Amino acid sequence: MSQKVQEPVINKLTELSTSDARWITLKKIDFTDEQGKPRSWEMATRKTRGSGGVDAVAIGNVILHPSKPPSTMLVIQYRPPLDAYTVEWPAGLIDAGETTEQAAVREFKEETGHECRVVSISPVQSADPGMSNANMQMAMVEVQLKEGDDALKVEQRLEDGEHIERVVVPIQDLYEKLVEYSKKERTIVAAKLFHFAHGMEFARTQKYF
Amino acid sequence: MSQKVQEPVINKLTELSTSDARWITLKKIDFTDEQGKPRSWEMATRKTRGSGGVDAVAIGNVILHPSKPPSTMLVIQYRPPLDAYTVEWPAGLIDAGETTEQAAVREFKEETGHECRVVSISPVQSADPGMSNANMQMAMVEVQLKEGDDALKVEQRLEDGEHIERVVVPIQDLYEKLVEYSKKERTIVAAKLFHFAHGMEFARTQKYF
Repeated sequence: MSQKVQEPVINKLTELSTSDARWITLKKIDFTDEQGKPRSWEMATRKTRGSGGVDAVAIGNVILHPSKPPSTMLVIQYRPPLDAYTVEWPAGLIDAGETTEQAAVREFKEETGHECRVVSISPVQSADPGMSNANMQMAMVEVQLKEGDDALKVEQRLEDGEHIERVVVPIQDLYEKLVEYSKKERTIVAAKLFHFAHGMEFARTQKYF
Repeated sequence: MSQKVQEPVINKLTELSTSDARWITLKKIDFTDEQGKPRSWEMATRKTRGSGGVDAVAIGNVILHPSKPPSTMLVIQYRPPLDAYTVEWPAGLIDAGETTEQAAVREFKEETGHECRVVSISPVQSADPGMSNANMQMAMVEVQLKEGDDALKVEQRLEDGEHIERVVVPIQDLYEKLVEYSKKERTIVAAKLFHFAHGMEFARTQKYF
């Protein structure tokens, strides 16, 4: 990863016409509702969806080491839409012709530097159903390290202009760590990762069953 | 809720110019990255964000009944962007001047018919950080029923044109139930809810600690 020489800064925010947009666009949906009434809805949509019909994959991951607690690798990167650093699991768009599993292995290698073993692929999920048709699947993967290995010493395969910081968090501490990150200036945790950790914490601490 | 007379159907999908859009728009972000290099990014954004700076609240909920297992209420509704029914926790946009907590209580009442007690409010989370600046908080709430109460017999307070089906799922069965829903035709589970349930399931079944 190339060295950071400054904090990212937004210089200009302009209305973007749908004809000039390359990656995303807006659509108006005219539909007939459950009562036979004509209605309309506005949505944002990606222009890049491949033949598989799924936009993206997020990579939940467990890093196993003989003498360290089971951990997960998170990525922190500047996200222009939020003008903030986000804390997320590695993720990326699925290329045309690629399966979700292939995209998971490729993106995980690029963003973390590690080969991984795919343990499971989730059903297709809707990222933000009121606003867009964006969808995704979660791949759960495992990385098995050996005694001398350092998860952060492996080189990332980032594209030019990509700046992605990695952090390794013991799974036991994930929820607490995400709450801490949320308090940091100019830092926001991605909802999917936070919800997963919140679900873990809920199961471990709740009093209902 | 007014009766369903047909399956919803999309009649027309048209390019929507940003000047005609009322709820959402596109923006081009010109920014300087970590290496001092000028770059640009495209994003979708809501036009409705209030003074609180948070777009939406999702309402994780626990329904307690003296002789039934602790459960959660989900809502199923037709979402035009996906042309499908989504399975979600109740959620909604935060109105101008409203706190997240107030929006949670109001939306929960509208969509489920129930008064609730807010147990916690999560940090602000980013809904889909590569594509939009949409953000949200999760309110966790509790509803305490009495012996004779039926969670689904309470009337919803839906606006005209809203069709929201409620289902009550024992929390123990949530993950399994969401996997089942994902297999149903024209049905997709929202990523945040799925990730929460996945996190619960991971904590309960994993072999790592």
